[in-house]
Amino acid sequence: KQKEDKQEFSKYPTKAGRRSLSRSISQSSTDSYSSAASYTDSSDDETSPRDKAQVNTHGSSDFCVKNIKQAEFGRREIEIAEQDMSALISLRKRAQGEKPLAGAKIVGCTHITAQTAVLIETLVALGAQCRWTACNIYSTQNEVAAALAETGVPVFAWKGESEDDFWWCIDRCVNTEGWQANMILDDGGDLTHWVYKKYPSVFKKARGIVEESVTGVHRLYQLSKAGKLCVPAMNVNDSVTKQKFDNLYCCRESILDGLKRTTDIMFGGKQVVVCGYGEVGKGCCTALKALGAIVCITEIDPISLLTCAFMDGFRVVKLSEVIRQMDVVITCTGNKNVVTREQLDRMKNGCIVCNMGHSNTEIDVASLRSPELTWERVRSQVDHIIWPDGKRVVLLAEGRLLNLSCSTVPTFVLSITATTQALALIELFNAPEGRYKQDVYLLPKKMDEYVASLHLPNFDAHLTELTDEQAKYMGLNKNGPFKPNYYR
Amino acid sequence: KQKEDKQEFSKYPTKAGRRSLSRSISQSSTDSYSSAASYTDSSDDETSPRDKAQVNTHGSSDFCVKNIKQAEFGRREIEIAEQDMSALISLRKRAQGEKPLAGAKIVGCTHITAQTAVLIETLVALGAQCRWTACNIYSTQNEVAAALAETGVPVFAWKGESEDDFWWCIDRCVNTEGWQANMILDDGGDLTHWVYKKYPSVFKKARGIVEESVTGVHRLYQLSKAGKLCVPAMNVNDSVTKQKFDNLYCCRESILDGLKRTTDIMFGGKQVVVCGYGEVGKGCCTALKALGAIVCITEIDPISLLTCAFMDGFRVVKLSEVIRQMDVVITCTGNKNVVTREQLDRMKNGCIVCNMGHSNTEIDVASLRSPELTWERVRSQVDHIIWPDGKRVVLLAEGRLLNLSCSTVPTFVLSITATTQALALIELFNAPEGRYKQDVYLLPKKMDEYVASLHLPNFDAHLTELTDEQAKYMGLNKNGPFKPNYYR
Amino acid sequence: KQKEDKQEFSKYPTKAGRRSLSRSISQSSTDSYSSAASYTDSSDDETSPRDKAQVNTHGSSDFCVKNIKQAEFGRREIEIAEQDMSALISLRKRAQGEKPLAGAKIVGCTHITAQTAVLIETLVALGAQCRWTACNIYSTQNEVAAALAETGVPVFAWKGESEDDFWWCIDRCVNTEGWQANMILDDGGDLTHWVYKKYPSVFKKARGIVEESVTGVHRLYQLSKAGKLCVPAMNVNDSVTKQKFDNLYCCRESILDGLKRTTDIMFGGKQVVVCGYGEVGKGCCTALKALGAIVCITEIDPISLLTCAFMDGFRVVKLSEVIRQMDVVITCTGNKNVVTREQLDRMKNGCIVCNMGHSNTEIDVASLRSPELTWERVRSQVDHIIWPDGKRVVLLAEGRLLNLSCSTVPTFVLSITATTQALALIELFNAPEGRYKQDVYLLPKKMDEYVASLHLPNFDAHLTELTDEQAKYMGLNKNGPFKPNYYR
Amino acid sequence: KQKEDKQEFSKYPTKAGRRSLSRSISQSSTDSYSSAASYTDSSDDETSPRDKAQVNTHGSSDFCVKNIKQAEFGRREIEIAEQDMSALISLRKRAQGEKPLAGAKIVGCTHITAQTAVLIETLVALGAQCRWTACNIYSTQNEVAAALAETGVPVFAWKGESEDDFWWCIDRCVNTEGWQANMILDDGGDLTHWVYKKYPSVFKKARGIVEESVTGVHRLYQLSKAGKLCVPAMNVNDSVTKQKFDNLYCCRESILDGLKRTTDIMFGGKQVVVCGYGEVGKGCCTALKALGAIVCITEIDPISLLTCAFMDGFRVVKLSEVIRQMDVVITCTGNKNVVTREQLDRMKNGCIVCNMGHSNTEIDVASLRSPELTWERVRSQVDHIIWPDGKRVVLLAEGRLLNLSCSTVPTFVLSITATTQALALIELFNAPEGRYKQDVYLLPKKMDEYVASLHLPNFDAHLTELTDEQAKYMGLNKNGPFKPNYYR
Repeated sequence: KQKEDKQEFSKYPTKAGRRSLSRSISQSSTDSYSSAASYTDSSDDETSPRDKAQVNTHGSSDFCVKNIKQAEFGRREIEIAEQDMSALISLRKRAQGEKPLAGAKIVGCTHITAQTAVLIETLVALGAQCRWTACNIYSTQNEVAAALAETGVPVFAWKGESEDDFWWCIDRCVNTEGWQANMILDDGGDLTHWVYKKYPSVFKKARGIVEESVTGVHRLYQLSKAGKLCVPAMNVNDSVTKQKFDNLYCCRESILDGLKRTTDIMFGGKQVVVCGYGEVGKGCCTALKALGAIVCITEIDPISLLTCAFMDGFRVVKLSEVIRQMDVVITCTGNKNVVTREQLDRMKNGCIVCNMGHSNTEIDVASLRSPELTWERVRSQVDHIIWPDGKRVVLLAEGRLLNLSCSTVPTFVLSITATTQALALIELFNAPEGRYKQDVYLLPKKMDEYVASLHLPNFDAHLTELTDEQAKYMGLNKNGPFKPNYYR
Repeated sequence: KQKEDKQEFSKYPTKAGRRSLSRSISQSSTDSYSSAASYTDSSDDETSPRDKAQVNTHGSSDFCVKNIKQAEFGRREIEIAEQDMSALISLRKRAQGEKPLAGAKIVGCTHITAQTAVLIETLVALGAQCRWTACNIYSTQNEVAAALAETGVPVFAWKGESEDDFWWCIDRCVNTEGWQANMILDDGGDLTHWVYKKYPSVFKKARGIVEESVTGVHRLYQLSKAGKLCVPAMNVNDSVTKQKFDNLYCCRESILDGLKRTTDIMFGGKQVVVCGYGEVGKGCCTALKALGAIVCITEIDPISLLTCAFMDGFRVVKLSEVIRQMDVVITCTGNKNVVTREQLDRMKNGCIVCNMGHSNTEIDVASLRSPELTWERVRSQVDHIIWPDGKRVVLLAEGRLLNLSCSTVPTFVLSITATTQALALIELFNAPEGRYKQDVYLLPKKMDEYVASLHLPNFDAHLTELTDEQAKYMGLNKNGPFKPNYYR
Repeated sequence: KQKEDKQEFSKYPTKAGRRSLSRSISQSSTDSYSSAASYTDSSDDETSPRDKAQVNTHGSSDFCVKNIKQAEFGRREIEIAEQDMSALISLRKRAQGEKPLAGAKIVGCTHITAQTAVLIETLVALGAQCRWTACNIYSTQNEVAAALAETGVPVFAWKGESEDDFWWCIDRCVNTEGWQANMILDDGGDLTHWVYKKYPSVFKKARGIVEESVTGVHRLYQLSKAGKLCVPAMNVNDSVTKQKFDNLYCCRESILDGLKRTTDIMFGGKQVVVCGYGEVGKGCCTALKALGAIVCITEIDPISLLTCAFMDGFRVVKLSEVIRQMDVVITCTGNKNVVTREQLDRMKNGCIVCNMGHSNTEIDVASLRSPELTWERVRSQVDHIIWPDGKRVVLLAEGRLLNLSCSTVPTFVLSITATTQALALIELFNAPEGRYKQDVYLLPKKMDEYVASLHLPNFDAHLTELTDEQAKYMGLNKNGPFKPNYYR
Repeated sequence: KQKEDKQEFSKYPTKAGRRSLSRSISQSSTDSYSSAASYTDSSDDETSPRDKAQVNTHGSSDFCVKNIKQAEFGRREIEIAEQDMSALISLRKRAQGEKPLAGAKIVGCTHITAQTAVLIETLVALGAQCRWTACNIYSTQNEVAAALAETGVPVFAWKGESEDDFWWCIDRCVNTEGWQANMILDDGGDLTHWVYKKYPSVFKKARGIVEESVTGVHRLYQLSKAGKLCVPAMNVNDSVTKQKFDNLYCCRESILDGLKRTTDIMFGGKQVVVCGYGEVGKGCCTALKALGAIVCITEIDPISLLTCAFMDGFRVVKLSEVIRQMDVVITCTGNKNVVTREQLDRMKNGCIVCNMGHSNTEIDVASLRSPELTWERVRSQVDHIIWPDGKRVVLLAEGRLLNLSCSTVPTFVLSITATTQALALIELFNAPEGRYKQDVYLLPKKMDEYVASLHLPNFDAHLTELTDEQAKYMGLNKNGPFKPNYYR
């Protein structure tokens, strides 16, 4: 199980708190089914990047990627991503004259994908110098890393790093002659951890830390409590916009995509049970129902059940009552052993089982690793578990997150996250002294609304403006914020 | 405007704060379109009930209703209501042995409808003695009042009371020989106000007040702040279950019902603009889209716009841009002058305009009362406003709340409210001394979940129970509560 | 049963063929729940219209209606209807110069509703003289008849005619001094039948018959076969446009309306079974699902089941398996005894049963008229059937068509029918000699498309035109027809 | 263009009539995005299969496939397919005792996919001997061909055959020592054509031909007319069940799948225009709307527009009016030049253009191959067309069918087709002499219903049976057929 956790989203050091790991991590979805990654996954080249001597066309060798020659492929991926990230592009344009990040020296540690590349190149366009490494040993798109390295961004990352590689890359990123970071963009807190431990002097001149993940944010609050946080830090995980997209909307699309890519299932007429009717479950149910599946749900909370499930028209059942009839079983509870071995035993032949919840504990996969059952891997991420009588259950992603493993995250969602990160960096870098202390901050409501408004042009949107009279009547400022701070 | 407010839901004293009056008030929907009311509305009998001598078949004359002879009709309405209020019926059964309200003397002031009657008769079944009056001069179903009076509940209420009648009824309810109330169930705070003013000694022995409305709750908090609240009070307006139903789900159904009953419109293919995409707007949009209308929305908040409207697939427009094409215009903002005279001038012939928001200010109806325009009342609640060139705009309910005026509230929603009220009364009446002080309380989370669970049998629901292991993993008690207190 | 049939849609003489009576008849929906009718239903005036002497304000007494003083009310209803019948209004305008019906003397026998009035007044505007009577003894809106009479159209009809009245009215309509009809617009064939029998000479000069109903069309084909049809006849029942609206779309809206007006039910979370998944059933299922009901269906045809039901995501069940759990049972099969007494016995308390199919045989209502069960009429069209143990089943419209009895037909649908009738009359009246023989014809495809295009302006529609090149490529005429004749 | 056609679905001889090629051909969807095909596409092995000497593990070399060693991979694909093709599996079981195809010698020419393999192995299980070849030079799944060859079915096919290879394979299939086919299963008519030309004597003993495609059926009707058809032939293209699935349901799912796999687009909030509202267009619109896209349509037929589009709630526009705002443009008309160069010029940056219609003429792709525009292939099937000002339009599949090129067809749909083929073979093989003459037949209605009923067990369906009384009332046989023959 330890090993599975790792494969899913993690690496050394700790896993405490991972259970509640935010969906934002799902941007790491770059396994072999991600269409983006599919070009360059040929693992025929066994040489470690650390042992290769590579130079980009500008003569620089200050990077370490799988294969600099994949740069052109990577550039195409970045260009595709740019099409759906016009908020960042427009940010580049608006801020170009003033270069609000001129003088910023940013060291970053995130998933390295085409979308991240658009962020990095935006930061550079706004005046920053950047050095980058990966926050996950599996999630790097090698060709994108190559494309960044080719344009002169020192990138240290490849898909399939060892633990030792991981820390080596972080170190190479931070520890470079004649350059010292004054800002940190982190996802998971490992970079921050390393700098604290090895190069604490960096924090003397640093303007701040921007942190993306639940885990990293948790660590920062602990540091803050312990009085050890020596720079301001911005928690961008909990912005309203980001939270809304990361659950309902994202899952609504990825459940379809994930099931289709792995099983080519026809949704129409399929009996589906969704365990748990939170935002994730709601997204799954909505999408599947819309495509003609017959969806029922399980829920533990009478209020959720009454106010949500029934009113949305889903039959509410106990899993054990319906398990024999189901074609697809989807877990979205965040709980453990939601699908038990006993229930797996009773599933019908061909039943598909997968997990969209927060952890890999929802399906009791361990119980399936027993001698009387045969596992047959029929495709990447798709296993047939075969019972002695020949019955097969189709297990996806070995019970890990389906949307993380078997579908891609829409660029648009990543655009929101990336824009939030960029604005947080600009805010921290330009804030007058004293505005932020050595504490953890949420992105100001105003900037959160700015992120939203930067994305509106994507949509041919026509926002209505309050008249003076209306604003007064409602007790609002005409330019927002329009919702109280506690609003979610 | 003063007059309109009154017609809508109020009577003396009119209150600031009415603007935010909770939807729960919508149970006052008993205008002439309410099918229930349609039997007995014949206003041919001009004698004031106060001047009539009426006796029920048991010989009692301790009541004052329009016409005791309507009791049989009213009984039928109550029986219909009971069909959908099995939570109260089941509460009657569960608590019947113990009579948890034995000794309770409840004076109530609420809308008097069939559903309220089911509540009152439940309280009686649980051991309480009740006296009742109306919280609104227009909302009484006369036949239901008669049915209650016939069975021996002293009711003082009729449809179309004068202001003087209103206070006279309250007084008759409270001030009776040899009987003193020890609990108050109020909706709007007028009864509480009257008791405070006229019979303050009542509070010496009272166990508490249960208040239903935003306005009444607001008054109680003010009393509390001022140190003048001399009994515990329970705010049942803000229970989770009630809030959820009163917005999204209720409006989803009532927008269709209200439009259909007034205009017999075919929804398919109609161009509709919904102003404001909060919960109410969302309910309206969802229902109309589902029936084939082409819906667009207006919104002022970029975050709402991005996270909600777009993701749900509605075109977001400015009202002025689309006003010429629209077949139906619906306001759901809570703001004022959302539809201006200038926009009304530009509407096409036959355009329907109505309001689902919280106030009667959203459509600038006042501007339509000008000499160049002709008003023609074509049906109850339906006016044609005729421009000099012959163009007609169809205005519903004179811009007041459509769902309040032109549709009924589903009994099921009222069942939730009524069950919450009953449980609050039981809780206050039976609470050990000291549990509640002279303050305003929310219904304990546990009871809120109990209200929900009492309604589950209506639905053939199969709630899943946590295993011990799962409860431990999630850090929850197996029997709930399942959500934190701040959860909404 | 004989009596029920009558109440539903009919009158003397025969009922053969009524079983398959087209939905178009549903325009007769004018029972006491029809909002339109609700003004003037006061039956306090017991005098037969035949015994009254009435004169309109122009001094004419060539009419017979309930009460000429209701004319003003009726005019308002007509004006409301006009708002949604702009196709006819536009037909008035387009054809006004030429008066294509100048010289036409039309005798009509249809339901007399506000929508029919718009048709009649259109015919008059186009040059025709009209005399009118009702095709159904229950369906006349008295105030509309009064409004027509007031403007000078000789109308002979009222709500609640006796059989003798019915034929008397027809006779008065046809048999008038100095005026002889040259066209007939019929709905059901009774007028045609009477003219054949009593005034056969009329057919010598008549240009043709336009017939609306399945029954009437059936009679015409029989006449034609028997060689007795002496004028051309146009079957407008089977136009494509009309058929599409009369089933799927109409039922989608009327199931909601009918249930709401009778029971105030909340749809969300209700368990509903719809028997039969034809177009009517599909309409019902779609609407109820959209509002949050949990819908399952029964079906007898494996192909329908596979290709429709499953793909649309409905559970397919046998009625007996689920009957205990259902909140609402709806029949849409056209078959008999679909809901049996045995199943009625097993329904749960409060279950609502209604019929949307083609006949009143689907629910075995007769079996409920037995001594051990108590019937209690709780509202118009709503009966509680009470079992000895107190269980109540809510039966709507005594098992007759719900949409006919308890909801209104959208004006827009009637507009399509009425426009089709008007065009058929114009076509027959102006056709060059020889185009139509003594036979039954369908409306030419071209005119059917014209009806559709006349309704497009209602919708802000932008029809795309084929380029010459595209038309050639597709083998179509640029101006249509676009679909083959056999297309439905 | 010639070349493109070929790549899409064809090979020599290219045919007039291809334009109307049935969707059923879409089972050829096996380009590099098909997940199934992705294992074995390594084109590193340049040797022609014709030049290789291969032997399966049973020692046979009577086959010619790309690489017999891929058999194990192929077996897995077949097993996945079996999971969703239980109708065939159940047919195997039901008919196993009797071996209804014992003695049948079937030569087949179809797409060779995992689903076809399930069909072939079913035929074998029922007693038939089979030899097989591919009907398309691109559509063979090499690993599946290998798996079939491994189990002893002589297969002659590989992906990427030359024209010469194509005919060589057919010939090897037919022309074998000591074995003469007595039945033909064809898709496109090429096999039939070859046998007619080269081995006419085969037809002397043949029991019949089963033909799948529009083109092949067309050829057969021509032969029949010309009096040259010397055996009975069964047209399985036009069965009701198959037609329904091949359009609405299939497209509903494949539009989402195709767009997602190629562009990772987020559907929510996207402005989409769908050109043409036939069944294909309807499927696309429904799916996209359900996932939150804002969909408008174009249509040329006023009746379609009125009866379908409006009632389903789509804005109807002209393409030119909205082209600037659109995020996605989808053609479903079957017409040509529906999207012109002029419109492509006006699209916004990042607009995605694709075709779901019947031909590759709908988008004027030729006009984009001009010097001022740059084409950049960013992924397989995805081109960026770059305007001089930097604007990019994303063209999918070069304007060919998206669902054919970029998504997979659900196994369930193929199961229906395959089951129909199997039943047609059984029917022809076992028919008593004289039942079928030298003509083209449709599958008997009864068998069509049998195909449907064989698929019901997939769905936990509970078909309702008519009572004797009901059957009599409806004039139906209790066991069907339930619909008239002309029903579609």
